[in-house]
Formats: sequence, structure tokens, C-alpha cells
Amino acid sequence: MPSAHPVFGDTPAIGLICRNCQATYDLIAQHACWECFGPLEVNYDAAALARVTREQIESGPQNLWRYAGLLPVGQNESDRLSLNPGLTPLVEADNLARELGMRKVWIKDDSANPTHSFKDRVVSVAASAAGKLGFDRLACASTGNLANSVAAHAARAGYESIVFIPYDLETGKVVTTAVYGGGLVAVNGSYDDVNRLCSQLTETDEFEKTAFVNVNIRPYYAEGSKTLGYEVAEQLGWRLPEQVVIPAASGELLTKVHKAFEECAEIGLTDQAKVRVFGAQSAGCSPIADAFDADTDVITPVKPTGIAKSLNIGDPAAGPYAIESVRATGGAFAKVDDDEIREGIRLLARTTGIFAETAGGVSVATLKKLLDEGRLDPDAETVVYNTGEGLKTLDAVAAQAGPTHTVDASLKSAKQAGLLD
Amino acid sequence: MPSAHPVFGDTPAIGLICRNCQATYDLIAQHACWECFGPLEVNYDAAALARVTREQIESGPQNLWRYAGLLPVGQNESDRLSLNPGLTPLVEADNLARELGMRKVWIKDDSANPTHSFKDRVVSVAASAAGKLGFDRLACASTGNLANSVAAHAARAGYESIVFIPYDLETGKVVTTAVYGGGLVAVNGSYDDVNRLCSQLTETDEFEKTAFVNVNIRPYYAEGSKTLGYEVAEQLGWRLPEQVVIPAASGELLTKVHKAFEECAEIGLTDQAKVRVFGAQSAGCSPIADAFDADTDVITPVKPTGIAKSLNIGDPAAGPYAIESVRATGGAFAKVDDDEIREGIRLLARTTGIFAETAGGVSVATLKKLLDEGRLDPDAETVVYNTGEGLKTLDAVAAQAGPTHTVDASLKSAKQAGLLD
Ligand SMILES: Cc1ncc(COP(=O)(O)O)c(C=O)c1O
Ligand SMILES: Cc1ncc(COP(=O)(O)O)c(C=O)c1O
Ligand SMILES: [Zn+2]
Ligand SMILES: [Zn+2]
Repeated sequence: MPSAHPVFGDTPAIGLICRNCQATYDLIAQHACWECFGPLEVNYDAAALARVTREQIESGPQNLWRYAGLLPVGQNESDRLSLNPGLTPLVEADNLARELGMRKVWIKDDSANPTHSFKDRVVSVAASAAGKLGFDRLACASTGNLANSVAAHAARAGYESIVFIPYDLETGKVVTTAVYGGGLVAVNGSYDDVNRLCSQLTETDEFEKTAFVNVNIRPYYAEGSKTLGYEVAEQLGWRLPEQVVIPAASGELLTKVHKAFEECAEIGLTDQAKVRVFGAQSAGCSPIADAFDADTDVITPVKPTGIAKSLNIGDPAAGPYAIESVRATGGAFAKVDDDEIREGIRLLARTTGIFAETAGGVSVATLKKLLDEGRLDPDAETVVYNTGEGLKTLDAVAAQAGPTHTVDASLKSAKQAGLLD
Repeated sequence: MPSAHPVFGDTPAIGLICRNCQATYDLIAQHACWECFGPLEVNYDAAALARVTREQIESGPQNLWRYAGLLPVGQNESDRLSLNPGLTPLVEADNLARELGMRKVWIKDDSANPTHSFKDRVVSVAASAAGKLGFDRLACASTGNLANSVAAHAARAGYESIVFIPYDLETGKVVTTAVYGGGLVAVNGSYDDVNRLCSQLTETDEFEKTAFVNVNIRPYYAEGSKTLGYEVAEQLGWRLPEQVVIPAASGELLTKVHKAFEECAEIGLTDQAKVRVFGAQSAGCSPIADAFDADTDVITPVKPTGIAKSLNIGDPAAGPYAIESVRATGGAFAKVDDDEIREGIRLLARTTGIFAETAGGVSVATLKKLLDEGRLDPDAETVVYNTGEGLKTLDAVAAQAGPTHTVDASLKSAKQAGLLD
């Protein structure tokens, strides 16, 4: 048993490690390697991970902290700075499967989290790490959902917050962030501009005690996404699915869900199994899908457009790793346009009762496209990730989702409108 | 053990009973007494209820069906026509308590349900009963949340649906209902007009196989709200709180949560305890609060106004019963105006990270008002019900919830905006 970490206490994490050159660091607030500028990720004691059992997990709380033994922070309840997201429904989507001619489809519905996106997972882990690391303010660069989650987590914990967003986000994302009363900075520029500004701010004295969850403490943040892999495995009865479809912006979510599946098999939580990982992007911002198609792993940054604003990251930090995951598992990337996204939202709603935001529409539309192109196996058990909530992007479908009839409050008017035919 | 019901199978319910004259009926699709026009409710075999134990409940699913032994339908998984709502968070609201000078406050956050309001509970029970009773289409008269839930439940189950709403609801409620692809009828009139039209439609041949969840099968629907009482008791460790604040439109929710607390004590799930039940209404529609203030139980119908549209029922069916619950427990009713509602939403968000719709703002503002007036005890453990989601009523707070700063993507601009002070 390794002795407890002086700052993090009882954790399976032993430090940070460069994904590129394998240089190692202590558990500090740092996201890029001092040697090679490669991204840092959390490095675990393999033996500590291997001690985690199904029984331990199953006796844990009904939220993502049941997987604390596989995370860098949160082993003790008092360490958690969290809205306690997770254990969101894995919904059997039989009507959808039938309509698409597939054998078995599940929707992992992460719109059920407290602020209605998967970002609550990454923020819960990052905010808890920020507490340990002595920060007193939470911040982020966001395409919308992350801002919402950071502001809400800070409100619950009584922390200050200041979040940065592109000026042109959906009202549903701005209001639901601002209502928590923290700082909300609209930046005249794209997400990538926002992100650059935040990187610069982390270097200033005034932001010394500010944790940008997806910048200076990104390695902790990224680990939160693994729980979207563990949960699917557990909810399938400790089995891995054969195929998954995951939306990608920075590519971090996809990479970490893949990592989680690998960990499940390594640790023995599930049998070894090949999970084909498919990535979904919006045609308005598809730098990862385009690199995949061009058979390279050099990502050419783009200027994002299109309605899937939460996925509009033109210069995706984890893009090359996402491509690696997809290639290694025999999956593929595909992209879908705004009309396909709208149709994806409506198809999902109509067949499952789940109302997804544009990012979920991207997932479902990509599922359909990959099937039509014969790249995804209709007979393989498939999990599609819905990572956000339709109420946050109402405009995407508002024009096609109004009343079917308008009547006066009388049987006569109901009859005239055809309701009694 | 009574023999199973021919239609409902294994259920603790033995029929319907008139709340007014105690006339009894079989488990049929009927909501008003043929003798006296009084409202019917589900009648249980007291011995069957008394057999339900904490252990049984705790070993059930992580949703409202864990209480199936106390409901008329849903004992078998195959009977459930449901999005599986329930077991929503009971959040310790310490920052809120501190700000209000209270000892202990909890928020029961029912915005965490699948369609983000408590209505998923009543619809799950009603839709499951509709299935048993042989209906093939789901319908309702709604102030918004109910329509959303009915449409989503129907989509999941592959049922037809047709929902009726007043023409002037919030976009957030219209779009999120229409997206499921069922019938959505906007009625030129108030909720009470909509309700009257639906009553008339139930009498037509064309609607013979249509279950209006809150009209012809209302007794089953109403029982779903009891789970909001059971859950609070269970989440407090099988204890009842000392005070609760519950928003009221028809008054059904309040009445049934009170009933659930009484059942908990009768069955022995909790100790006997006095729970003071407080009712919250919007000043734009306060027929129940006004009758309470006037010390009568005769409700004078009103024409609703104001931003808390989900509570805008001018002629509340369960109003007299809600007053009875409040009086019997030593509680009170109060009403709050639109500005207080907005402030209630922001207070809750800022202190708990929970973003409520206007109905939740009504609850929180009423809590504050009752405290200020000395009618609610600051030292008694209090549970406040948030029954809906802020994303559905964005306009209520949009004017006060925008960016705090707007900057260009440069340190210089950030400095000019005061972010580096
Ligand atoms: C709803 C939603 N889904 C998916 C993503 C993609 O996440 P990642 O940047 O980790 O690829 C985001 C990112 O903001 C998001 O908001
Ligand atoms: C969010 C919300 N809260 C509370 C209520 C009140 O419910 P009841 O009509 O049972 O009093 C409603 C009714 O529509 C509602 O939508
Ligand atoms: Zn390196
Ligand atoms: Zn009667």
C-alpha cells in the first residue's frame, strides 16, 4: 500500500505523466509538459486500480463517486466539491433500433445530470482537485455546457466563479449560467479565442488562485469523462458494448471513454472485449473527422460554423488521441450537417422520449450515416452517447416543433380542426 | 391475501372511493362520483399497504417504482409505461439556510426527472393504468409540464398522444413537447378552458380509447405525487421533516404529499410525526391561498395572470383538500408576486446550484415570506419542493441573467474590463 499523497490523501493517482514523452510530475496544477509541451494526464498506481472490485463499486453512492477508486480525487465524501452527477439512465432504444434496422441500441442519456450535460462529471472531478490544490475560484473556457456546470458547482460549494464563453452562444446556455450569480465573460471571438485568452489569464498574478478546470487543471478534469465508460459497462451487467458513438469537440470525452473501457478489461471488471469506437462531429466543425478521412493524425484547425455550438472547437486539443482510439478499435469518424442534426434530434425524441441538444443530434445523425454507409454493424450491440439537453438549444428545432392544431375552447372548434375525425 | 384484480393484477388497490360521500367503485376509468359528483380517489387494502417494509422498498429499483407496493399499478416491471422518474436529489441547502437564518433546509429537486418536472411521476402511474385499462392514446390538459411528460412517455412506449395547452405558454414548454411528434393542440383560452374542453372530449366516441391522464383517469394520476412524500421520508433516513413548502396549482400535489406522510407513519415506515404543510401560490393565481386567508374552504375561481404559468389553474379541483391538509397540520398558504418569484429563482440558484422554473421560485419566495411573517419556524427542519426546471421558463430571469463582462480576446481588453483588478 503506497503511503497517502500529502495533498490528495488516499488516491490511486501517483502523479501526472506526459502523453508524449512520458516525463512524470507530481499531482500539481499543470497541463502541458515542461519538456515537450505534450499534454499531461493522470498517472495511476496500476496495483491500486487493480484492487477495485465490482462489489466495492456497487456498494458505493448512486452517482459518479462510486468510481472514486478509479479517479484521482474524491475517495472521501468530504473531498468532493460536487453536484453528484452520474448514474444517468442507459435507455433501451428499441423503437429507434427498429426504425434503423439495428439489432440492439442503447442511449446513454447524460442530459439527466444536474446541469443537464456530461460536463458535470468533469467539473466534479476538477473542482474537487481544485479544492485540494488550494484554489479559491473556479473558471473555464467553454462552449456553453461547461460554463453552466462550473457556475452551478461553485454556487453549491460557496466558491467564487468566473467563466468565459464566445459571445454568440444560445440564450439557453447564457441564462442558465448567469443565473448562478458568478462572473460570466462574453468574449468577442470563437471558442478557440476564448481558450487562448484563458491560457494567458492563468499566467497573471490576479488569476493565481483561480482554477480553470479545462486549462491549468485539465488532467483532473479529463478523468471525469472516464465515468461515462465505467457506467455503461456496469449498467450492461459488467459487459462492454460492441460499438459506441461519441460526439467530439476537443476529443477528450471520446479518448477517455475508450480509456475507461480498456481499464475495465485490464482490472477485470469486465471480460476483455473489442469495442469499436465511432466519433461524431458536426460538418460546421469537423477538424478531427476530416483528419481521419485524410488518413493523417495532423489536425488542421478550422473556423467553426453551424448549430452544434457546444461542439464548435476548431483546434481540438485531444484530436490526435481521439483519432488513435478510433483507429485502434476499428471504428470511424463521420460528420453530419445542420439538417441532419435537426433530424437526429427529432428521430431520437420521437422514438425514445429523450430530447437532446444539438450535440446529441450529432451522435444520432452520425449513427444513421455510418449505418447507411455500411461502416457500422447493424447487428452489433451499440451505445450512443447523448451528452446534452434539448432545452438548451431550443432554436435548433423550434421552427419544426410547434402546435399541430390551434382551436377555440369548444367541441365545435375541435371538430372543425379535425380532432374528431 | 386478496385475489388479484382481473385487470390490474397484483395491486394493493381495491377500487376507487368518493372523497365526498365514500361511494365505492371498481378500478375503472372514472374521476367523478356518479352519486354526488365528488372526486374519486384510489382505495387501498390497508392490510396490503401495511405489509410494505423499508427493506422491500430499499431493495427496489432506483426510481419511483420502488414504492409500487403503495401505488395502484406498476408492481410488475412489464406493467410500467414509464420513463422511470423519481429518486431525485434531496439537497442539503446550507448556504440558503444561512442566508435566511434557518437551522436546516433541504431542497427536494424534482427538476432532475426525465422531462424535468414532478409531472413524470403522475404520468408514469397514469400511463401504466391507461395501459391496463385498454386505452391506446394518451392525452392531457396541461399548463405545460404535464404535456411535456405525456408526450415523452408516449414516445418511449410507442403510444399515440394528443396534448392540450393554453395558446400562450412559454416556448420552452411548447417546443420540448412538440418535438416528440405527437398531437399538440393550442387552445385559445386559459388552462381552465382547456380542461373543460378535454372533459367534453372524453365524452365523444372519437376519444373513447384516449386516456386523459388528469381527467378521466385522474385518480391514478394523483397517486403518483405520493412518491414525492415517500422519497423525502426515505432520503431523511426514514424520518419525516417538521415543515414542508409545496407549490399548488390544482392542489393535488400538496394533498397527496400530505397523504404520503400520513401513510408512512400509519404503515410504520416512519415514526408518527407532525409535519406542518405550507402551500405556495403565485399572486397572479392564488384562489387557494385567498380562500385560506378568508378562512373558508369555498374556492372562488379566478382568471390567472403572472409568470408562474405552470401554476395558473384558476379553478383548482383539489383546492379544498389542500386547504384541509394545511389547516390540519398547522401550516399556512401564502402567495408571492412576480418580482418575488424571480428573486426566489435567483436566490435558490446562487445558494444551491439549482436552477428552478417559476414554480420553484414560488416555493422559495413563499418560504422567505412565511419566515419574514413569522409563520414558519426557522428552527424546524424544512423541506422545500422544487417541482420544475429553470430552462423551461428562461424568460422569467433572462433580463437579469446575462454576461457580467464583454471583452475582446486579449489580456489588454480583459484588463480594461476590470478582470485583472
Ligand atoms: C454536450 C457536449 N457533448 C460533447 C462535447 C465534447 O466534449 P469534448 O470536448 O471532450 O470532445 C461537449 C463539449 O463541450 C458538449 O458540451
Ligand atoms: C412545476 C409544477 N409545480 C407544481 C404544480 C402544481 O401541481 P398541482 O396541480 O398538483 O397542484 C405544477 C402543475 O402543473 C407544475 O407544473
Ligand atoms: Zn513531454
Ligand atoms: Zn360521492
